[in-house]
Amino acid sequence: MGLYRVAVVGGAGYAGEELVRILSRHPGVALTQLTSRMHRGERVREVISGLPGAAENLVFEEPDPSRLCEADVIFLALPHGAAAEYVVPLREAGKIVVDLSADFRLRNPRHYEADYGWEHPAPALLSKAVYALPELHRAEIRHGDLLAAPGCYPTSILLGLSPALGADWLREEEIVANSLSGTSGAGRRPEVPLLFSEMCENARPYGIPRHRHMAEMEQELDRLAGRKIDLVFIPHLIPLARGILSTIVCPLRTEIGLEEMHAHYVSFYRNDAFVRVLRLGELPAVRDVVRTNRADIGLQWDGTHRRLLVFCAIDNLGKGAAGQAVQAMNLRLGLPEEEGLLR
Amino acid sequence: MGLYRVAVVGGAGYAGEELVRILSRHPGVALTQLTSRMHRGERVREVISGLPGAAENLVFEEPDPSRLCEADVIFLALPHGAAAEYVVPLREAGKIVVDLSADFRLRNPRHYEADYGWEHPAPALLSKAVYALPELHRAEIRHGDLLAAPGCYPTSILLGLSPALGADWLREEEIVANSLSGTSGAGRRPEVPLLFSEMCENARPYGIPRHRHMAEMEQELDRLAGRKIDLVFIPHLIPLARGILSTIVCPLRTEIGLEEMHAHYVSFYRNDAFVRVLRLGELPAVRDVVRTNRADIGLQWDGTHRRLLVFCAIDNLGKGAAGQAVQAMNLRLGLPEEEGLLR
Amino acid sequence: MGLYRVAVVGGAGYAGEELVRILSRHPGVALTQLTSRMHRGERVREVISGLPGAAENLVFEEPDPSRLCEADVIFLALPHGAAAEYVVPLREAGKIVVDLSADFRLRNPRHYEADYGWEHPAPALLSKAVYALPELHRAEIRHGDLLAAPGCYPTSILLGLSPALGADWLREEEIVANSLSGTSGAGRRPEVPLLFSEMCENARPYGIPRHRHMAEMEQELDRLAGRKIDLVFIPHLIPLARGILSTIVCPLRTEIGLEEMHAHYVSFYRNDAFVRVLRLGELPAVRDVVRTNRADIGLQWDGTHRRLLVFCAIDNLGKGAAGQAVQAMNLRLGLPEEEGLLR
Amino acid sequence: MGLYRVAVVGGAGYAGEELVRILSRHPGVALTQLTSRMHRGERVREVISGLPGAAENLVFEEPDPSRLCEADVIFLALPHGAAAEYVVPLREAGKIVVDLSADFRLRNPRHYEADYGWEHPAPALLSKAVYALPELHRAEIRHGDLLAAPGCYPTSILLGLSPALGADWLREEEIVANSLSGTSGAGRRPEVPLLFSEMCENARPYGIPRHRHMAEMEQELDRLAGRKIDLVFIPHLIPLARGILSTIVCPLRTEIGLEEMHAHYVSFYRNDAFVRVLRLGELPAVRDVVRTNRADIGLQWDGTHRRLLVFCAIDNLGKGAAGQAVQAMNLRLGLPEEEGLLR
Repeated sequence: MGLYRVAVVGGAGYAGEELVRILSRHPGVALTQLTSRMHRGERVREVISGLPGAAENLVFEEPDPSRLCEADVIFLALPHGAAAEYVVPLREAGKIVVDLSADFRLRNPRHYEADYGWEHPAPALLSKAVYALPELHRAEIRHGDLLAAPGCYPTSILLGLSPALGADWLREEEIVANSLSGTSGAGRRPEVPLLFSEMCENARPYGIPRHRHMAEMEQELDRLAGRKIDLVFIPHLIPLARGILSTIVCPLRTEIGLEEMHAHYVSFYRNDAFVRVLRLGELPAVRDVVRTNRADIGLQWDGTHRRLLVFCAIDNLGKGAAGQAVQAMNLRLGLPEEEGLLR
Repeated sequence: MGLYRVAVVGGAGYAGEELVRILSRHPGVALTQLTSRMHRGERVREVISGLPGAAENLVFEEPDPSRLCEADVIFLALPHGAAAEYVVPLREAGKIVVDLSADFRLRNPRHYEADYGWEHPAPALLSKAVYALPELHRAEIRHGDLLAAPGCYPTSILLGLSPALGADWLREEEIVANSLSGTSGAGRRPEVPLLFSEMCENARPYGIPRHRHMAEMEQELDRLAGRKIDLVFIPHLIPLARGILSTIVCPLRTEIGLEEMHAHYVSFYRNDAFVRVLRLGELPAVRDVVRTNRADIGLQWDGTHRRLLVFCAIDNLGKGAAGQAVQAMNLRLGLPEEEGLLR
Repeated sequence: MGLYRVAVVGGAGYAGEELVRILSRHPGVALTQLTSRMHRGERVREVISGLPGAAENLVFEEPDPSRLCEADVIFLALPHGAAAEYVVPLREAGKIVVDLSADFRLRNPRHYEADYGWEHPAPALLSKAVYALPELHRAEIRHGDLLAAPGCYPTSILLGLSPALGADWLREEEIVANSLSGTSGAGRRPEVPLLFSEMCENARPYGIPRHRHMAEMEQELDRLAGRKIDLVFIPHLIPLARGILSTIVCPLRTEIGLEEMHAHYVSFYRNDAFVRVLRLGELPAVRDVVRTNRADIGLQWDGTHRRLLVFCAIDNLGKGAAGQAVQAMNLRLGLPEEEGLLR
Repeated sequence: MGLYRVAVVGGAGYAGEELVRILSRHPGVALTQLTSRMHRGERVREVISGLPGAAENLVFEEPDPSRLCEADVIFLALPHGAAAEYVVPLREAGKIVVDLSADFRLRNPRHYEADYGWEHPAPALLSKAVYALPELHRAEIRHGDLLAAPGCYPTSILLGLSPALGADWLREEEIVANSLSGTSGAGRRPEVPLLFSEMCENARPYGIPRHRHMAEMEQELDRLAGRKIDLVFIPHLIPLARGILSTIVCPLRTEIGLEEMHAHYVSFYRNDAFVRVLRLGELPAVRDVVRTNRADIGLQWDGTHRRLLVFCAIDNLGKGAAGQAVQAMNLRLGLPEEEGLLR
C-alpha cells in the first residue's frame, strides 16, 4: 500500500513553508503537490530551505481544485477568507481538508462576519467543521473531514486553561491573558511597522480592545467550561521572528494547593506527547519550543491573591499552525499522532 | 557663579554609563568625578561612547568618600546593598545623594531584608530618604537630601496607575500587571541565560511569584491609594537591550467612559513634561521611548469586563533609572526640571 | 543676535528624523521649519521621539521653497533624485543648502546617470557643490553654499583610507573593502526582504557587483590619492537597525611597521574630534559608535601578506548622514565644529 | 540486523545539542548514550528541545570511555584540548570516533601548539586522522576511523574556494576572506562581550591578525591547490545566534567568463547534495541555510579588477559542525550520505 498523498495550497507563506518542511520529512505521507501563485513554476528547493533531499524537486503549481483532488489530504494555508473557494469543491469530491485559516473555526457565521468584516462564504459547511485542537478534541478529529486548525493565540491559551476549566476551579471572574508574539504571526506582509528597522528594539501591544482571535477563544473556552467564560486578552508584538508566550492569570474559587494543581495538569496531559507540564519552579521559554510542535506549560501560584498563574509557550508556526495541522492529519489518517513531528 | 559639581559612583554599569551620558551634556551641572573599580585610571572616552567633547577627558577613579565630598551632588549607581557605605559619610558631610539602587526605597527595613536577604545596613537613614518619582513627589524631592531613585518596573506601573488610583475608580480587587523588560535590566552580569545565543529568539517570565520590586510597588501603591492595593505582577525578559513595557489591567468600581478617563489622565499629567498620554486609539511602543526620559501611556477600555487597560512604556535605563535620577536632581537643585533630558 | 534658522525638508525618513533630533538639541541654531508630505499638519512630538522640550511643538508642513527661504540653512533629506527641485530655487535665493541625497556628490553627471538611471536634473550646479566630508575638505566646506553630505559607506571607507592614501603607502593593486550595514540604510521602505521576520537571523551581501555608492567612492579616492585607485567593494546587510562596519584590506608598497602606521593615523586625525583611532590591539565595534557622530578606526597588520587591515565603524544615520551634515553646517556657519554633536 | 549504535560525549554544548537533535531523528542509527558532566542524571528532554518522541528518555551520563565502547560510533563535542582523553582508549577499542574539536584537524603538532598554546596530547594519532570534509575527502572518510570534523569558518571557505583552486584559475596573490559569524560559534561561555545587552545592535571584528582556524585553512588550501596559498582571513561577530557568511575575493590569473566559472562550480558540486550553487545573479543569505546541512554558494565577477567574488553561507552548528559530522558518519558507515540531514 502506498503512502497517503498530501497537497499544500499556499505553500509560500510562513505557515505554508513550515507545512512543507514538516510534511516533506513525514514518513507516513507523500507530499505530492504544492501551489503558490507567486512562485508558480519554481522548484520548491529554490524557495524553501530545510527540506530532505526527496521533496526538493517538487514544483509550485497554480492552484487548481480539480488537480488538487488527486491528493488524499489537502492543507490550505491561505489568507483568511480565501479557503472556501477550495473547501467547497474538495469536500464535494470527498477529500479531507485541513484549513489553517480562521474561516472554519467559528460555528456562528455572524461571529465570523463581526470579526472579519465580510459575510462567511460557505456558512453551510461551518457545522461540519471540527475545531482541530488534538489535545482537546481528539475523537472528533479522527472522524472529521474538514479540520479547522486553531489559531496560534487560542492554542496557547486553550492548552493553558483546559485543565483548570475542566476541574472547575475558577471563580466567575475575568481571566487575564497577556500574549507575546513574534512577527511571523503577521504574515509576510510588506508594511512599515513590521520592518526590521521598526521592530528591532521594540515591543508593543496591538489589536486592542478586540483582537480577531477573541471569538474563537470565547467559543472554545465556553465549550470547555460549560458556561460563559470572561477573558481579557492582550496581544503584544515583540522582536522575535517566531514564538508565542501567553501568561494567564486565573482567579480561583477554592483553596487548592499548587502541588495539587500541578499534579492535575500533569495528569490531564499525561497522554499528550506535545504538551510538557514543567516541574514546579520552572517557567517556559520561547526558545525551548521554537521549531517544535510542543507546548510548554509552567504553573505558579500567587497565594496572596489566590490566583493561579499559567504560562504557555509555543511556536506560532509549529504547534500554533503547521505542526498542529499535521498532528490533526495524523489522527484523521490513523497514523501515530507524533509521526513526523518534533517536541 | 559656577555650575553645580556632580560625581557618579559606579560609572561603568549600564545605569552608570547612562548617567554619565546625560550629566555630561547637562548645561546646568559639571560632571567632575567618576569612579569605577574596574576601570580605575582609564579615561571615560575609552569606556563610554556618546559623550560631548568636554567630558571626555575625565578619568575613572577609585571610589573614595572623602574625595567625593568635593562634589555637590553624588549619584550612586552600585549593586543593591552597596550604597550605605557611601551614603553615611556623604550625608554626614551634608552632601546631596541620589541613589539608584533599591537600598533606600523602602521605609520598612524588614521589607528590605525580606526581599534582598540581608539586614539593612543603615536603617536609621530610611526615614530620611525620599522616594524620588518626580511626577508624584515633586515637593518632597525639592527638599530631600537622600533621593532614592525608583526601580524601573515600579516607575512604569506607578505612572500608569496614579491617575486611576487618585480618582478612586478601582474596585477592591486585584490589579494585574505584566511587564516586558530588556536584558540591560539584569545588569552587566556574565551569566549563561543572558547570553545573546540564549536570549535571541527568546522570551520568558522570571522572578515569579515574588519579584524583588514587589515591596516597593506595594508601599507606593498603598500610599497613593490610601488603602491596601492588591497587585499581581509578572515580569518577563524579552530580546531587547533596553526598554520596559507594562500592561496593566484594572477592575473599575464605577461606570466611567473611556473619554472621561482619558481626559483625567491628560489633566493629571498636564504639567509633566516627561509623561505623554497618547491619543485615544494609540498604544505605546518601546521604540518611541528608548533613549529618552519619557513615559508613554496609552489607555484602552474593555467594556465587556469593565476593565481599564493601561499601557506604559519607558526606557529602563532612562526614565527607569538614570534619566529619572537626573530629573530628581534638577528639582532638588532648583534647575528647570527638563534640563539636560530628552523626551 | 539671534540664532541661525534652519529647516529640514523630508523630516520623517530615518535620516530626517535624526537631523531633527540633532538640530533640536543644537545650542547654536534654531530649528524653525520642518516638512513632510506624509505627516503634514502633525506636531513633531507625535512623530519623532528623543527631542528636548523646546522643539516639540513644531508642526510638519507641506514643503514649499518660498517658505523655506525664511531659513538660513536648509537640510534636504529626500530620496535620490528629488533634491534639485529645492536646490535650484533655494540657491537662487542665496540660501545655504545641505543635501543628504546622492544628487550633488558626483562631479560628472554621466556617472550620476550611470548609477542612478536617470539624467541629472541640475548638472550646472554640480561644479558648485562641495563634497562635505569635514575631516578631508574642511576649508572648502567653510565656503560652500551647496554642501553634499557623503554617503554612509563612502564615509566609513574614505575615513579609513585617507591617512594611508595620503602617505602613499599602497601598492598599485586593489583595495578590498567589505562593509556591514544595518537595515535603516535601506530607508523606511515596506519591502518583504526588509521585514523583521526576514532579516532576523539573517545576513546577506547585496548590490554586487556595483553598488550605487561606487562612483562616489572612486571619485573621492582618486582625488585623495592623486591617481586611479582600484577598490573592490562588497556591502552586506546584517541584523542591525543602525550602524556600519567597514573592513578594508590594503596591499602595502613598502615595509612600514604597524606602530609607525598607527602613529601616522593618530597624527593625521589629531585635530579631528570625531575620529578616534583606537589603541593598537583594539578593534572597533558598531555598538560604540551608534547614536554618535564618531568614527572609530582600528588598525592591524597582516605581516605575512604585507597588508594593512583598517576597520572603521560609524553610525550610518550619524556620522554617515545626519551628524556629518550638521558637522558641515557648523563649519559653514563658523560655529564650533563639535557643537551639538556627540562622540 | 540492528541499527548502528551511536554515542555523543559533551551533549550539552551548542554543537552537542545539535548532534543530539540530528542523530535522534536519523533513521539509520540509534542514539544510545549521551554524556554531560553538568547535566548528569537529567533526562535529555529536560535539556534539549526539538527531539522526536523516541529519543527523549535518554539520560545524560557521566562520560566513561569503557561504557562508551558499547557504541559503534562515538561523537566528541568537547572543548579544544579535551578529546584525546577519549580518542586514545576508544581507538584502542576499535571504535569509530568523530571529533568535532580542533584537536585532530592539523597534521603538524607544532601548528597545533602554536595556535592553541599547549602541546598536542596525542601527536601519534594525528597521521591517522581524516579531515572529514565530505565534499572534498569522501574516499578517505569512507575508510577513516578517526574523523576530524572541520571547523565552521574553514568549511565555508574551503567549499567556496575548492572549485576555483582545482581549476587553477587563481593568481599567486592573496585571497581575502571576510567571515561573519553568529554568537553560538563562541560556545556557551558566560562572558560579558557575549551578553545579549552587548551583542544586540553590535558587529565587530575579532581574532585579528591570526584566528585559531588559520592553520587549518592554510593546511587544507595548500593541499587542494598543490602549492602555498595566501589567505587574508578576517572573522567578525554579528548579532545572529547561528550562521556564517563568508565573502571571498579571489584574484584571477586568466580571463574566464563568469558563466564559465559558474558552470564549473555547478559541475564541481553536481553530485553533492549539500552544496547548492546559486543561479547567476543570486547571492546567499544566512537565513536560507540556518538549521540545514547545506552550503549555499553564490558567485559574482568584478570585471574591472579581474576578481572572482565567492559567497558561501552555512549554519555554523549544521554544515559547520554537527550536520557535517553526521554526514561523515553516514559515509563511514556506508549509509546514504543524505540520511537524517536537511538541506
